[in-house]
Order: sequence, then structure tokens, then C-alpha cells
Amino acid sequence: MIKITLPDGAIKEVAEGSSPFDVAKSISEGLARNVISAKFDDTTVEATTPLTKDGSLTLYTWNNDEGKKAFWHSTSHVVAQALEELYPGIKLTIGPAIENGFYYDVDLGDQVISEKDFPAIEKKALEIAREKHDFKMREVSKSEALAYYKGQNNTYKVELIENLTDGEITFCDHSTFTDLCRGGHIPNTGIIKAIKILSVAGAYWRGDEKNKQLTRVYGISFPKQKELTAYLELLEEAKKRDHRKLGKELELFTFSQKVGQGLPLWLPKGAALRERLEDFLKKAQKKAGYEMVVTPHIGQKELYVTSGHYAKYGEDSFQPINTPKEGEEFLLKPMNCPHHCEIYNSSPFSYKDLPKRFAEFGTVYRYEQSGELHGLTRVRGFTQDDAHIFCTQEQLNDEFKNVIDLTLYVLGSLGFENFTAQVSVRDLEKPEKYIGDATNWEKAEQAIIDAAEEKGLNYVIETGEAAFYGPKLDFMVKDALGRNWQLGTIQVDYNLPERFDLTYKGSDNELHRPVMIHRAPFGSMERFVALLLEHTGGNFPLWLIPKQAIILPVSEKHEKYAEKVLNSLENHEIRALIDSRNETVGKKIREAELKKIPFMLIVGENEEEAETISVRKHGGEDLGSISISEFSDLVSKEINSTLKSF
Amino acid sequence: MIKITLPDGAIKEVAEGSSPFDVAKSISEGLARNVISAKFDDTTVEATTPLTKDGSLTLYTWNNDEGKKAFWHSTSHVVAQALEELYPGIKLTIGPAIENGFYYDVDLGDQVISEKDFPAIEKKALEIAREKHDFKMREVSKSEALAYYKGQNNTYKVELIENLTDGEITFCDHSTFTDLCRGGHIPNTGIIKAIKILSVAGAYWRGDEKNKQLTRVYGISFPKQKELTAYLELLEEAKKRDHRKLGKELELFTFSQKVGQGLPLWLPKGAALRERLEDFLKKAQKKAGYEMVVTPHIGQKELYVTSGHYAKYGEDSFQPINTPKEGEEFLLKPMNCPHHCEIYNSSPFSYKDLPKRFAEFGTVYRYEQSGELHGLTRVRGFTQDDAHIFCTQEQLNDEFKNVIDLTLYVLGSLGFENFTAQVSVRDLEKPEKYIGDATNWEKAEQAIIDAAEEKGLNYVIETGEAAFYGPKLDFMVKDALGRNWQLGTIQVDYNLPERFDLTYKGSDNELHRPVMIHRAPFGSMERFVALLLEHTGGNFPLWLIPKQAIILPVSEKHEKYAEKVLNSLENHEIRALIDSRNETVGKKIREAELKKIPFMLIVGENEEEAETISVRKHGGEDLGSISISEFSDLVSKEINSTLKSF
Repeated sequence: MIKITLPDGAIKEVAEGSSPFDVAKSISEGLARNVISAKFDDTTVEATTPLTKDGSLTLYTWNNDEGKKAFWHSTSHVVAQALEELYPGIKLTIGPAIENGFYYDVDLGDQVISEKDFPAIEKKALEIAREKHDFKMREVSKSEALAYYKGQNNTYKVELIENLTDGEITFCDHSTFTDLCRGGHIPNTGIIKAIKILSVAGAYWRGDEKNKQLTRVYGISFPKQKELTAYLELLEEAKKRDHRKLGKELELFTFSQKVGQGLPLWLPKGAALRERLEDFLKKAQKKAGYEMVVTPHIGQKELYVTSGHYAKYGEDSFQPINTPKEGEEFLLKPMNCPHHCEIYNSSPFSYKDLPKRFAEFGTVYRYEQSGELHGLTRVRGFTQDDAHIFCTQEQLNDEFKNVIDLTLYVLGSLGFENFTAQVSVRDLEKPEKYIGDATNWEKAEQAIIDAAEEKGLNYVIETGEAAFYGPKLDFMVKDALGRNWQLGTIQVDYNLPERFDLTYKGSDNELHRPVMIHRAPFGSMERFVALLLEHTGGNFPLWLIPKQAIILPVSEKHEKYAEKVLNSLENHEIRALIDSRNETVGKKIREAELKKIPFMLIVGENEEEAETISVRKHGGEDLGSISISEFSDLVSKEINSTLKSF
Repeated sequence: MIKITLPDGAIKEVAEGSSPFDVAKSISEGLARNVISAKFDDTTVEATTPLTKDGSLTLYTWNNDEGKKAFWHSTSHVVAQALEELYPGIKLTIGPAIENGFYYDVDLGDQVISEKDFPAIEKKALEIAREKHDFKMREVSKSEALAYYKGQNNTYKVELIENLTDGEITFCDHSTFTDLCRGGHIPNTGIIKAIKILSVAGAYWRGDEKNKQLTRVYGISFPKQKELTAYLELLEEAKKRDHRKLGKELELFTFSQKVGQGLPLWLPKGAALRERLEDFLKKAQKKAGYEMVVTPHIGQKELYVTSGHYAKYGEDSFQPINTPKEGEEFLLKPMNCPHHCEIYNSSPFSYKDLPKRFAEFGTVYRYEQSGELHGLTRVRGFTQDDAHIFCTQEQLNDEFKNVIDLTLYVLGSLGFENFTAQVSVRDLEKPEKYIGDATNWEKAEQAIIDAAEEKGLNYVIETGEAAFYGPKLDFMVKDALGRNWQLGTIQVDYNLPERFDLTYKGSDNELHRPVMIHRAPFGSMERFVALLLEHTGGNFPLWLIPKQAIILPVSEKHEKYAEKVLNSLENHEIRALIDSRNETVGKKIREAELKKIPFMLIVGENEEEAETISVRKHGGEDLGSISISEFSDLVSKEINSTLKSF
């Protein structure tokens, strides 16, 4: 008998040689049906691998990321088999699971795979899957493994095996197919119910462009057909909502090769959108007692040596800027905190002055490799909606709660209702990893947890995930496509106050160290606008959208009235424009739809006579002919329904 | 007889050997009385120098900069004589006129001059001046000159003479005093009626710190005592209004050695002031059809090679920023125009879309030597209230007028009423100096002059002062101390549209080149705030000032009422705060005066009962006890009287 420890700490005694599947069965038949992979003492194993000693076991189902990984990796074997059958003589190389699905890199020789071939591959792979072949791992000797692939003339696998030693080489068999493989499969092919080949692309062997270019076949698979259907719909929707596509269509931002990659240029409509977001947050921050500051975009290297950023990131960042004669070295600022610490240090504070809350829409620059850049979500320059709160240890609890309130207000007003929070705390067993007094840490962690509780957040605590300088709370926001985005970090910092020797005079007339909180509800204006585009598909909340209404005169005759309507809307603080082109109203409506303008106001003979407007909502709903003040009430009502109170 | 051409083109025939003074006399006795120096064919001469050939003559009085220079340089001779008499054995070196006054560098040996000695020096110098000694130039041979100064053991003058050759050595005598001197004096010492020694400082011989340190004696002089008095008052006032001093007192901005010299950090009150200025301009710009954009603070070197800035400024600027692996080179942006050109280039425009007016509060970075840095007026990073207008040649006239309107509105609303304009045009004789079509230049120059005329500007035309890429108009603003500041340049540009290959589709369906206008009414936020501080002494216009009123409760008892007043003021959009410290009202008033808060609202027993406030204006005027709505009316009225309409 061996002792198996389960994640909840329970210990199961099972016969030596039992598999994870057997352990699952001993818990419940239902669980056993769903187990597709497992982890034994930090090693991924098959659900069928015999366990021969005491150890910890985690069982994975389709609902775990690890379960999906085994599922997709296993599917790559099946697809490889299908490819071998359909394209005889090709050479297989590697076929791992990735974030969404899997790929297999193959040397097709003279053959070619294109999109029209995908259905045949899917069909063949699914036929194989339906035959319910078990995946079976076996250890082979190096000479045996080499002989096998030399027989197939597969130089790629031979090269991989050459780098392995006896005892670490395993093959995986299913059906008539054998592959060099480290393991991590589902029990059998039968549970793969849906397979989709997504794309093909070129990929160099071992990622080295000096090597031969192979064909990378991307695919994904699911245990249910309807899950594939849903995924493909999501993919389609994500494509439509791609912020790079929408950003172009809505004329929000652009990039210029001459200015440099990863450096967005905000076009008038984008800059106006961004300003509206900033004004919205400024107003809330003002109410919450923040004070705006403005600091430069560079700082002496010395500043970042003091803050510790240079030691940590200096080498991999934008390199220092020298002055021509004076031998000074400046850095593009990667963070605003050192500058705000210097502002704090510019005048003496007493405990009565705290908390000080310095906020800045601070543009920072961080080097990213060009291959990593992506639209507005991965850039080299971005503007943080940054703020740093300097407070006493006693004020930490209240300040944290205030920041949560502000963050919830901001996210709520922008239509994000679905989020969880993660509280990252110390690993108590590794106290040497953390700076700052243990009592303060404990207080800070408790302050965060109390705040999360009190605000009714749906949160988890992650031990050991705190930064070395303090615990933190992150919001994870689910967007309309169900994807998670990390937003609105709130971070306690005991480190920078030490490094910058920040002090305040306490009621005891002695100097004390303040605590610092970093926070940014949006994160950055760039990433947030990207998220907002993908979440809303460009249909921004009414309070935020650049143009709330477009006036469509039926003909030239009604332009004067259109102008009058525009003036009147402006007096009601409604942002509108006139489409006075010599086009049909039908065409104007279609284009206004594309521009995601919420209200189309058609004005013709009848409207002019009755001093009304005919209102059509984006999407098609007809609200009939109403007066401008009725329309204004309608707009106000809709705005108030999304804009939370603060 | 010789022919003397005067600046107005008139020609006077006078006897050979006549002096400028004689020429002046032939024009009018009054002029002759005031002539103190002259220029003959580009050479500065004495008013008494005999003219021996035909040539052009300009006569200088105290009212010309050149006249003042002769006056102050002459005074330095007199002061040097006084120093020799008071401090026997000292060695004189050089004594030029400077922007405001003059200095003389002397080797005092073991002797010392300090502030307490100034009156004696002034007295002695004035005694000499009153003796009405003529300044008389005479040529001396090198050997004679060397013998004279070797006899005095003056190695400095000997060194100066060693570097001269026979024929270019002149001495100037007055009274018993002789000095090596190139000339440029007033006729006699008698017109120097007031002399003030301002300061002493150390100065190395020939500015080289390896040489001996001399004593530099600074002074100034005037033809009337009351002019000296006015100057000293101005100096005192300028000291009080120094924006660096006020910036500190009003907690507007600070500098940090760690962040770097010349890189201002805007403190909360300064950032709020700046934001208010920006919002004010944004609002006006929106009305004027500008669109805001946002661009990064760096750009690839390539961008500035295209714009031509790299070739012109690259070497003397902040050096390029390299990326760690990819070999890219970025520059801190010294100007926003290249970025705006790239925005223009990101989409096609037709003549119907023009003008496009892209505005940005764009922070730029330019290297200045650390010795040149000065508060907010000479910095290494500053935010321009920048905009670029892209228009057709035909639209240039209207656009120029619109920019003038905007600039006049901005300057007027900030209390600058006293300004002149300078129109800088080509030198028609040097067409090779300018880029762009001559016909367009002519049109552009005429457009600017027409605009200046039409707007009733007080302007001068400066030939040859245009940039190589286009003509421009500069505003020169006189501040409250009578000092001139250049502000609000409007600049036509034919160069960047070429360099960036900017085009628009004309009504003829062909591609054409747009014209570009650069403009910035404030210039930069930093320099403008500095100017505003020195112009207003910190007493900003009411619409702009951070806190318009301060509520001073007479005692703790009235704090609740003070809060109520504050709320009520906020509802009236009046920016106020409460001074609830446990101090006397007298002390609170004194501090509010120092903080330049326009209105102090005292609330006590009587006010609380009557629901009023007792209003005291900054400076002391008592407005009595009034209701909040009366006070609000008063504030609105005062704001409307300064804020111009637009």
C-alpha cells in the first residue's frame, strides 16, 4: 500500500501500482469519468500512470488549465497521425499544447497544406479519435529510439534524441502511431469530440532562421462539439472587436514607422476620448482628496539607482541619455514613483498633513522587444493614471478602502461588473524575501483583507505572491468575451520610503517613515482604451463616446434647421455633429452605424415644421419624432444609468 | 566739404573735420544737447571725433541702447579713476558696459572692497564727474603704450597691448586719468549725474580659472538722479517678483538634484494653476476649430533626420537613446512638429478637409548647459501649448488672422495689454537663403502684414529676419516692470511639408502641398507661468488664481458655519478653503496676504447669525458684511472684467 496526499490534505491509502484514475475512482465515479491528467509530486503524469510510492497527487479535468493542456497535447498526436496518413513521407518534429490549442511543426517536403485542406485533416483526425485508442507511454533506450527515427529518415527527431540520455527517453503510442514524447496525455482519444485546424504558418526548426522552414499547423479541440462552436463564435467576435481594427475604423490612434514602433499617436477622436476618461477620473480623484502634480519624463540615472529600478531593469531598458558636454546621464522614466517621492521630499510634513495623495497622468517609457509589441496593449510608451498615497501605518486601512471605492466606481461606470480580486501576501516561511517590519506587514495584509471583506469583494488570497516590498490587491476583470484582464493594482510599498528616506513628524515630535500606496485604476490609458474597445466593440458608454448624436438633414434645404438643432444640443451639453454631405439618408445612417454613433437625428420637412427630431438608435430602434428637450432628458437618463455615483 | 548720409536718407554737406556733434548742431540745438555717441559707417565713434570722409552717420542719445552703452562705458573710466585714488597701487584691467550698467575688473592686491565701501566710491566718482572732464582719445605707439603700463607695473594691460599692433592702440584721457581704450565715450563726464555701485564679485583674469582672481566692481549710472532712484526701485521690485522666489512661497514648483537640473517638478498648486491655464486655452482652441492630439515624447532618429532637426541640433542636444538589442536610436523630442506631420500623413486629405488644426500640450526636451539654466525661464524640459495648422495657400490669410485673434484673446485675458508685433520677412537680395516658391513667400508675407494691419497691431517689419522656411510674426509683451518678453510666435513653414511630403487633393483632383503654421500663444507653460508671476507679482487674475477666497473662522465655535460657507461657495463654483488653525484672525489674515489670496472671508458670531460673511480684499480693502450670493456676484463681475470674450 502507498499513501497518496490529495490537495485538501486528505490521505488515501491505495495499492502500489494504482493510477491517478484509480485514486479518482476511489473518491467518486463522477470524478473518475472526468479525470484526464494528473500531477504527482510536481511531475505531470498520465491518468493511467501507475503510482509506486507515497506522494502528493492533483487530479486534472477539462476545467483546469493543466487538463486542457493534456487534452490539446494529446490532440496534436492524433492530428500528426492524420497528417502522416494524408501526406505520406512528411517528417514530424514537435507538437506542444499552447494557450489556446496546440500546433505541430512538420517538414512537408514538396507538399503544401492550405486552408482548403483543413476539413480533410479535421475529418481524418476525428475518425482516429473516435476509435478510442489509449495513449500508452513506454521507456525506450537511446539506441532503440535513434534506430526508429533513422529508419524513417527523420533527422529532426534524431537531433532531439541525440541531446537526451538513456533513462529520459519515452515514446507514446496510440493506434498505429508512435511519437517521441515526454508525456502528459489524456487516457484515450475517444474524449476528443471536436477538432478544428485553425491556420498554417511558416516556422523555422528550433526557431532559428538559419534552419529549414517547417510548416506549423495550428489547431484546437474540445470534449464537446458545442464548445468548439462557441469558441469559433468567440474568435469571430474577437476579430471584429480587435482594438487595432476598431481603433483604425473609429480613427482613434495610429502608428508611424518614422516615430517608432510601439509609440502610439493619438488622433483627434482618440485624444478626445482619452481626455474624457482622464477628466472623469480627475473629477473622482479630486473628490477623493487627490492632488495632481506634473513631473518630467526623464530623470538622472542617480534617481533610479536610489529607487532600485536601475539595478533591476537598467540593462534591458532604453539606454541612458547623455548630455553633450557635462557627462550627465538621464533615463526615460519607466515609473512615476521616484519623481513623486522627490516631490514628497521637497517639503517637511507632519502627521497632520497626511495622507498626501499625489496623482499624475504620467507617461512612462519601457523597452519591449519589437516582436512583443501589440496594438495598444503592449507598447513602449504609455500613460499611467498613476497616484501615490503617503500615509501613516494607522491610515493604511482607510486609504486602502478608499482606493477600492474609487476603483469600483471607475470600473462600474465603464460597464465592468464581472471581476474578482486577488490579495497577494507574504510566504511566512521565507521572511528573508521581504523588506520592512514583520508587524507592519501583518498589519498591512490584514488591512487589505479587511478592506476586501468590508467592500464585499469576491477575492482569493495568494500566499507568496506579494512583491518583496509589500502586499497588494489586483482586480481581474472579465470582458464581454469572457477573457480576463488584470486591472487596477493597489500596492503597498515599504521599500521606496526607506530608499528615499521619506519622513513625517509624528505627534511625538519624532520623525517616522510613511507607508506608500501605488495605485492606477485604469492601469494605463493605452491598455484601458484597448480593453474598452474590445469589451464594448466600440459601443462606448454614452457619457464617454466622442459623438453622442449625428444630425442627418434629409436634404440641403434642412441644413439651417440642422445647425439650429446642433446649437440647441450644445446648450444641452450633448456632443453632436451634422452629416451635411450630399448623400441619401440611408447611406448616412449606414455610415453612422459603422461609426457607432448612439443616436441618429433625422431632420426633414416635418421635423422642421414641428421643431422636433426623428430619433433612431444605433442598432435600429426607432424612437419617433420628439422635441430636443425630450431627447436631452432621454440622454441624461441613459447616462445616469451607467455612470455610478461617487 | 564731405557728404554725411543720415539714417532717414537725407544727406548733409559739412566741412571736413566736423564731428557728429557738429552735424547734430546743424540739425538742431536740442539734438546736439542730447547726442552722446555716434556710429560712422558701422564703427562706433565719439560725438567729438572729426569726420574726414563721406559716410553714413547715426547719432545716439541716452534713449538708444548704443547711447547707454557709451554712457556706462564712460562711467567705468570715472569709477576706475575713483578706485585708483581710493585704493592706491591697484591694477586696472578691463571695464566694459554690459546690459544694465558696467563693470571694472581690478587687481586689488591685498586690499578689499566690500558693500560698506560703495558710498565712498560713488561719492568720489561723482566728484570727478561733476568736474566736467572731456574724454579725449589719442593714438599711441605700441612701445609708448607698453612703457606707460610697465612704468605702472600693470602686467594685465601689458598683456593686452602685447596682442595689439601699432595703429590700433588708443588711450583715452580725462582729467588726470588715462586708460587703454578702443573708444565709444560720451563727450564729457559732466552729464553723468548719478552713479551707483551695485555689487562686487570674483572674476578670473580673462575668464580662465587658472589665472589670478580679480575683483569685479559692478555699477550703473544715469543722466538724472531720479532715473537712478526709479531703477533701484525697479530692481527691488524685480527681486520681490522673482518667479523663483514666488514659486517657492506660493508652493507652485520645485527642483530636485536627483531628478536633474532644469527639470521642474510641479507641486499641487502649480499643477492646478497650469491645468487651469491649459483648460482656458483648450476651450478657446476648441471654439477656434482646433483638434487635440497626443504624441510620444521620443521619436526615432530617422524622424528628425527627415525633419532636418537632427542635422541642425543633433550634436548639441540630449544624445540618442539606444534600445538594448535591436540597434534602434531614439531622440527625446525637441519639437512636436515632426510628430504632427506624421499624424497628418496617416490619412489622406482633400481640400475640403482643410484646414486641419492639430493642437497638443506637448512636452519637449532641449539640452541647455547647466550654467544657462534659470528657474522656469530657461529649463531642459518644457510643455509647449503647441499647434500646427495645415492649410492651402489661399487659406493662409484667414488662418493667420484667426491665430492673431486667439493670441490677443489669450494675452488680454491674462492682463497683458502692452505689446508690439514684429513681422519678419525675407531679404529680397538673398533669395538663395530661403526655401519655397517666391510667389508663395510674397503671398505669405503680404498675408501676415494684411492680418497685422487688419487686427490693428502695433507692428514693425524686419527685413531678413524670416526663418529660412518662412516668414513669421512675434509678439513682444511688456511686463509690469517694463521688461520685454517675446511671446506667441506665429510662423509660416514651407519646409516641413516638403520634407514630410505632405499632400492634399485639390479641387482639380491633383495632389498639392499644404502650408503649415506653427503657433504657441503662451510659448511654453513654464516660461509663461514665470512671466505671469513676475508680471503680476503672484496676484493672478481672479479667474486663474488657485484659491479665490479663504474662510477665516473667528474661533472653533464657527467652524461648522465655515464649512457651510465653503459648501455654498463650491456650489457657486468659487474655489475656497478654510483656515481652521487655532490662531488669531490677525495672524490668519497676514498669512493669507502672503499667499496672495484675493478675498478673506471672516466668519464669527454676527456673520453666523445673519448668514453673511465679512469680506476683506487682498491689500486691505474692507467690503463689509454681505451674503454669499452677493459675494458670488462680485466675484463673477470681477472675473468678467478681466476675461475677454472670444
